[in-house]
Amino acid sequence: MKMAAQANNPQHSILYLLERPSEPFFVPKGDRKAVFDVPNNDFLVERFRPVADELGTRFGEDTQVRVPVRNISFPDLSFVMELGRRDNFSLFIPRHREMGSRLIDIFMGMRTFDDFLAVSVYARDRVNPYLFVYALSVAILHRPDTKGLQLPPLTEIFPEKYVDGGLFERAREESSILSEGARVPIEIPLDYTATDLEEEHRVAYFREDLGINLHHWHWHLVYPFSANRTIVEKDRRGELFYYMHQQIVARYNFERLCNRLGRVKRLLNFRDPIEEGYFPKLDTLVASRNWASRHSGAKLSDISREVDQLRFDLQDLDRWRDRIIEAIHLGRVINNRGENVDLTETGGIDILGNMVEASIISINQNLYGDFHNFGHVAIALAHDPDHRHLETFSVMGDPATAMRDPVFYRWHATIDDLFQMHKRTLPRYTPAQLDYQGIRISNIEITTTGAGKNELRTFWQQNDIDLSRGMDFAPRGSVFARFTQLAHAPFQYKITVENSGNERRMGTVRIFMAPKFDERGLPMLFRDQRLLFIELDKFQVTLNNSRSNTITRDSSKSSITIPFERTFRDLEARPTNQGELAAFNYCGCGWPEHMLVPKGSQEGFIAQLFVMVSNIADDRVDGSAPGQGTCSESSSFCGIRDKRYPDKRSMGFPFDRMPRTGVETLQQFLTPNMAVTDVRIVFNNRVQAPRAVSNTI
Amino acid sequence: MKMAAQANNPQHSILYLLERPSEPFFVPKGDRKAVFDVPNNDFLVERFRPVADELGTRFGEDTQVRVPVRNISFPDLSFVMELGRRDNFSLFIPRHREMGSRLIDIFMGMRTFDDFLAVSVYARDRVNPYLFVYALSVAILHRPDTKGLQLPPLTEIFPEKYVDGGLFERAREESSILSEGARVPIEIPLDYTATDLEEEHRVAYFREDLGINLHHWHWHLVYPFSANRTIVEKDRRGELFYYMHQQIVARYNFERLCNRLGRVKRLLNFRDPIEEGYFPKLDTLVASRNWASRHSGAKLSDISREVDQLRFDLQDLDRWRDRIIEAIHLGRVINNRGENVDLTETGGIDILGNMVEASIISINQNLYGDFHNFGHVAIALAHDPDHRHLETFSVMGDPATAMRDPVFYRWHATIDDLFQMHKRTLPRYTPAQLDYQGIRISNIEITTTGAGKNELRTFWQQNDIDLSRGMDFAPRGSVFARFTQLAHAPFQYKITVENSGNERRMGTVRIFMAPKFDERGLPMLFRDQRLLFIELDKFQVTLNNSRSNTITRDSSKSSITIPFERTFRDLEARPTNQGELAAFNYCGCGWPEHMLVPKGSQEGFIAQLFVMVSNIADDRVDGSAPGQGTCSESSSFCGIRDKRYPDKRSMGFPFDRMPRTGVETLQQFLTPNMAVTDVRIVFNNRVQAPRAVSNTI
Repeated sequence: MKMAAQANNPQHSILYLLERPSEPFFVPKGDRKAVFDVPNNDFLVERFRPVADELGTRFGEDTQVRVPVRNISFPDLSFVMELGRRDNFSLFIPRHREMGSRLIDIFMGMRTFDDFLAVSVYARDRVNPYLFVYALSVAILHRPDTKGLQLPPLTEIFPEKYVDGGLFERAREESSILSEGARVPIEIPLDYTATDLEEEHRVAYFREDLGINLHHWHWHLVYPFSANRTIVEKDRRGELFYYMHQQIVARYNFERLCNRLGRVKRLLNFRDPIEEGYFPKLDTLVASRNWASRHSGAKLSDISREVDQLRFDLQDLDRWRDRIIEAIHLGRVINNRGENVDLTETGGIDILGNMVEASIISINQNLYGDFHNFGHVAIALAHDPDHRHLETFSVMGDPATAMRDPVFYRWHATIDDLFQMHKRTLPRYTPAQLDYQGIRISNIEITTTGAGKNELRTFWQQNDIDLSRGMDFAPRGSVFARFTQLAHAPFQYKITVENSGNERRMGTVRIFMAPKFDERGLPMLFRDQRLLFIELDKFQVTLNNSRSNTITRDSSKSSITIPFERTFRDLEARPTNQGELAAFNYCGCGWPEHMLVPKGSQEGFIAQLFVMVSNIADDRVDGSAPGQGTCSESSSFCGIRDKRYPDKRSMGFPFDRMPRTGVETLQQFLTPNMAVTDVRIVFNNRVQAPRAVSNTI
Repeated sequence: MKMAAQANNPQHSILYLLERPSEPFFVPKGDRKAVFDVPNNDFLVERFRPVADELGTRFGEDTQVRVPVRNISFPDLSFVMELGRRDNFSLFIPRHREMGSRLIDIFMGMRTFDDFLAVSVYARDRVNPYLFVYALSVAILHRPDTKGLQLPPLTEIFPEKYVDGGLFERAREESSILSEGARVPIEIPLDYTATDLEEEHRVAYFREDLGINLHHWHWHLVYPFSANRTIVEKDRRGELFYYMHQQIVARYNFERLCNRLGRVKRLLNFRDPIEEGYFPKLDTLVASRNWASRHSGAKLSDISREVDQLRFDLQDLDRWRDRIIEAIHLGRVINNRGENVDLTETGGIDILGNMVEASIISINQNLYGDFHNFGHVAIALAHDPDHRHLETFSVMGDPATAMRDPVFYRWHATIDDLFQMHKRTLPRYTPAQLDYQGIRISNIEITTTGAGKNELRTFWQQNDIDLSRGMDFAPRGSVFARFTQLAHAPFQYKITVENSGNERRMGTVRIFMAPKFDERGLPMLFRDQRLLFIELDKFQVTLNNSRSNTITRDSSKSSITIPFERTFRDLEARPTNQGELAAFNYCGCGWPEHMLVPKGSQEGFIAQLFVMVSNIADDRVDGSAPGQGTCSESSSFCGIRDKRYPDKRSMGFPFDRMPRTGVETLQQFLTPNMAVTDVRIVFNNRVQAPRAVSNTI
């Protein structure tokens, strides 16, 4: 949360409210010890009012920044305050998300920025900190007057959701004993949640990756499923819910195959014990309860928790699932006016996405329920379904942490299966739909510096994050956690395309990759492999006529990723003109670049690289194109702010449907505008030291 | 850890090492900011040596006490340091207890106090803090040159083992924002680990009582089962292990009946799921892993944990149990030289106690194993038996926390059952053994101020403990947690005894109480009821001849309890002469006075008060008597330091054996020197505010 570079933005001061979220607002924030100058003591919570004078002398004497706060008439926060300051907050629990919506509405409804700031200061020490940070983040993202602000990464606001809880006392030690210059980063071992005795742990580097979990959190900020309709109802959000999560499952399965694990099993029978235990090792600094663990063999139960005003049965999940499946098989859903609505070839998936999730724009929540969200809840509360033990939910209850848990993928495999059922009912793509007349790919290859042709290189990379901004009541000054992540050497695609036509033509290059062999080591059938294709890139090109075009493209430009710096660092070197800043936060959403390439294996994991140039006529969206516009790097997963989704095709095209009759293998699937080549992903089990760490972090 | 009153004791400075156990020794300790003046930087752990100069200027500038530390040749701590600084420490794990023994030996072996101090300073920042505090405490208790020191209660050293983990961030807030005078105690609700949806939670006030858990910890400090033989081998320690735990189970069952719960079930079949889940809500400030929870229905497994060098099967527990039972039924055990040793009427129980526990003086650990300790371990590691999840043990793995868990009582009911098997094989007490010729009790009654005759009164009482001394790296100055405990109105026994003989005679008054009815509401048979009799008091009296003697006795004098202040408060008002101080720490051991009387019920729970005056000739122990000598309040549970157990009878007499033939009821059991009366225990569901809290705490 380095503020300097944003200081020219008059709204930046609101970001101080995101620092050390459970320290009261009057404790100075940031390196410059900013304090909020409130017009009267009514801004203070009741318990601090009697000592207001003392506070004035204790704090703020060496402040360099005073943020004026105007007087306002305070909004009624009583409903929002029903969630205790020390409770945990889950978007998946309807009551919590209603509180979230209410607070977002309050923030969005303030007429001026100054009013917005004042009400935020007022709310901060009254409202649950998780709820506050969520609602304030959504508001900052969606208010016109704060579009230019860059949210700090959640790893800095709530490091407790991302790093081994055992670290914080060590960090406290470090910052209490040593001056800032003498502190050394505290290393988080790569294997801190389990050992390889637990097979599932082989892919923990994926599940527990900070960037992946930040992406998931940020995605849900950009696409809240509950808030004012104008915020929720974004172009193709239901379809994007499907696609983004489908790609997560595909990537997870890809990683599993790299690690000699079979594809993830769906969670079909809600009465079966869940074999995958998970002990997240996350402590909370803000709530009074830590994230619960789940032992191996845990069973789900009907949920009846008065405290959350939450009651549903596993039978409800059964019924919702079965109704959704019936609707899919009938090809139509019943909306909340009782009318039939067809699940069309292009629009059906969007209806289903919103309905299954479910977002507030579900076509009929009474009938189709809240399947995906309540599945999260049932799993997250398996250990204390009736609140008898006063426990809060496990990591599955929070989008910021859910992806750490092996069961997340079992659940999303179940969810994805519903979408795939629908996709299987759709017409197959004809060769004409797939082909691009006159366009032929004659060669594709991948070049990695220092590696053989068509070889990808992966290894371990260390990085540091600053914990200090999220460690309430600890001494000031940075203290770093050093963690180890998967990374890959940058590479380049080289694609040779013949345009035999007479005109320059545009096309969309679509690059995917999938494992070549299944868990038995046998070549995969197309119908299985298509579900494992992970998108690597998508971009538009212009092809000169009557000749061979060579397209080179750097891996760092990927349409799904955001750069390392954007995921983790609050860099000074970010866009400074207002136009770029305007779209910047959308880019907080995005797959982390370092996780673009699956791990592969030491002996070299064989995958198939697929490249297609599709017909721009069927791709183009007016005013929006993949990777174009400022700061739209991850448009495939996140869309582009205030614009339509930049690709008219069904998301996942051309792998989103069953193949035409007669196609059993990838090779048979190809039309001339497609090409496939084998690539080897070679993992080197070395750990690379952190890139230059500077105090600017 | 108020040091002022002990300051006249030159050894008191060593107690500073028990404050904020994970803060390095060079950070000033206590209100007077004491620092240890080490002769060279080799005392510093390696990572601080390069910044030694900086440390000198950062710390210790405003110190008021400098503790000189002499130079020594450092002992080899490498074995002891194999347990990491951030690991948890369990006396039940053999490797850990070997480390504990080694460190105790090092401490005990130092020739002078100054050497002892120096080696303690050297060890402090190198050794695991739990291990360090345990070993240092045992050494202080057993070294002749530190007998006069009073150990601070463990609640102050490691508050994390006693109070809701959610409190610490609030305490940090309190101490960071407010000056000491403006801070208010943070309340721990009575029901913070569960709700009454969980039936077992009805007796959580007992299980989670701070005083009870402190007693259990302190008992294990006084009676370590592994250390130098001279420390372990105390008079009748095996029998005391049996009796103290038998009384715990009896008291627990008494409380259960008060709360309409059945008596606790033994844990007989190690393959059955354990229905009682437990979520301790304890966080750790020192270790990197919190105490694990146990969900309902957890199953035990064979243990194989390389990290703890620990490997045993549930079958081992089966075998050890069956061998112990066989020995009991044969009436003899086989010692480690292969010889038969009879389990005699008086000595058998002591052999069994050491063998079942097992302590290092077990008669044959190869044959009879480590039944009680490994039972603790198997339960404590149920969630991660092979360490695949890198989890540490649950509360069952630490004597300081084990009594919180419902399963503790199931396990100790199992243990006690073994002892009772042996007791059932012993000759019944004859009327001659029970009677005291010429002594007759003509009346007994209980008087409670403001209550009816034979009525006991219970209620809730709030108390405060200071968390600040155990909160490493938090701002200085007290910050209190306020908790709520069961308490009772003080009462008085009035016993009228006729001595029809011609001489003054002495006798031992033994007072017990048990529920009158079982869980079905039916009167109990003696054979069942005898196991529920809880000792309330035991003391010697002189009975004048040829007339009626009226004995009055205050409940506060109980032979099992220690006063509230001794349990919790590091009061200035404690014994000051060296003679009293010498025995003082033994008294840290003792049942907390506020838990003397079971809760009863709002409608009045009917119990039977039993009083006996036994023949002093069979009771007397040379040089030792119950309640006599300085500071021996809890001699029934804890013995008296450096003296023999002050009662020659079998512990639990007269209820430790099956009754003579023909005795089915308590009434039939009575001899003239005994009396029984019904008492009502009336619980009033009010909460009494804390007794005067002063800053001297």
